[in-house]
Amino acid sequence: MAEQDFDPRCWIAGTDADRPRMLHTMMRVRDPQASIRFYVEGLGMKLVDVFEIPERRLTAHFLGFEEGQQDGFLELAWYWDAEAAYTHGSGYGHVSVGAPDFDATFARLKAFGAEVLAEPFRIFPGGPRLAMVKDPDGYAVEIVQARRAQAEERA
Amino acid sequence: MAEQDFDPRCWIAGTDADRPRMLHTMMRVRDPQASIRFYVEGLGMKLVDVFEIPERRLTAHFLGFEEGQQDGFLELAWYWDAEAAYTHGSGYGHVSVGAPDFDATFARLKAFGAEVLAEPFRIFPGGPRLAMVKDPDGYAVEIVQARRAQAEERA
Repeated sequence: MAEQDFDPRCWIAGTDADRPRMLHTMMRVRDPQASIRFYVEGLGMKLVDVFEIPERRLTAHFLGFEEGQQDGFLELAWYWDAEAAYTHGSGYGHVSVGAPDFDATFARLKAFGAEVLAEPFRIFPGGPRLAMVKDPDGYAVEIVQARRAQAEERA
Repeated sequence: MAEQDFDPRCWIAGTDADRPRMLHTMMRVRDPQASIRFYVEGLGMKLVDVFEIPERRLTAHFLGFEEGQQDGFLELAWYWDAEAAYTHGSGYGHVSVGAPDFDATFARLKAFGAEVLAEPFRIFPGGPRLAMVKDPDGYAVEIVQARRAQAEERA
């Protein structure tokens, strides 16, 4: 195989190929533009890469949070010929996002119009706050408070 | 809230709380020990943390690949009272793992007894090889070649 035939960028966002990594979580979506709006404008992610694969009638959209991110991207897979809404079994749960500014993130998601599955709560005393919202295809997305709020630090 | 009441370690593997992150992907499992064996002995992950939450009759197991990992952990949630096997809808796809040593990883999974959903293939010419296996609850796990094999480099 010629050198130029191997493109490790394909399917492997990030640059560190020397360690095993959790590359991404893949979910099928019906309306990629609606999904991208949700994850970008609502959740604050960035569209990192888009691969169109006509042979599979598939466009794969990869989203992440930051330049230096190496693990845990989202792959939103749009199958061009999917006809019905996707179903959700009882097994898969959610992706979970750590938000340094929990309140602002949750407020932005609400302003965006995200359906709220769970208002902010603590799963146990002293734990960070959690909230749960629904993406346009009905996948649950968990938001976790990654830092104490200033008000909590003063308390 | 007293300082010691806030434990940011809870639900937030890794240490970088100052940027938004993809913390983890949560999947419900029926037999956590079987799942942990699959992800540790088969896939090469490490059990990073275990939280038992009796109020919710839930034990949450967090797995990752490396010490420095900040994003993209797996949460295997064992609900103590789950009675039936979990179902899988048509929407959720898989988690995808980048393997520097694709052949050894796939061989180890096969030796472990993992059910193979897709033998190694290239999704397009010049792309990395991919394979797909099934975890004990039937969730698909994708393995992606993260580096060219030496034989490919010589070719």
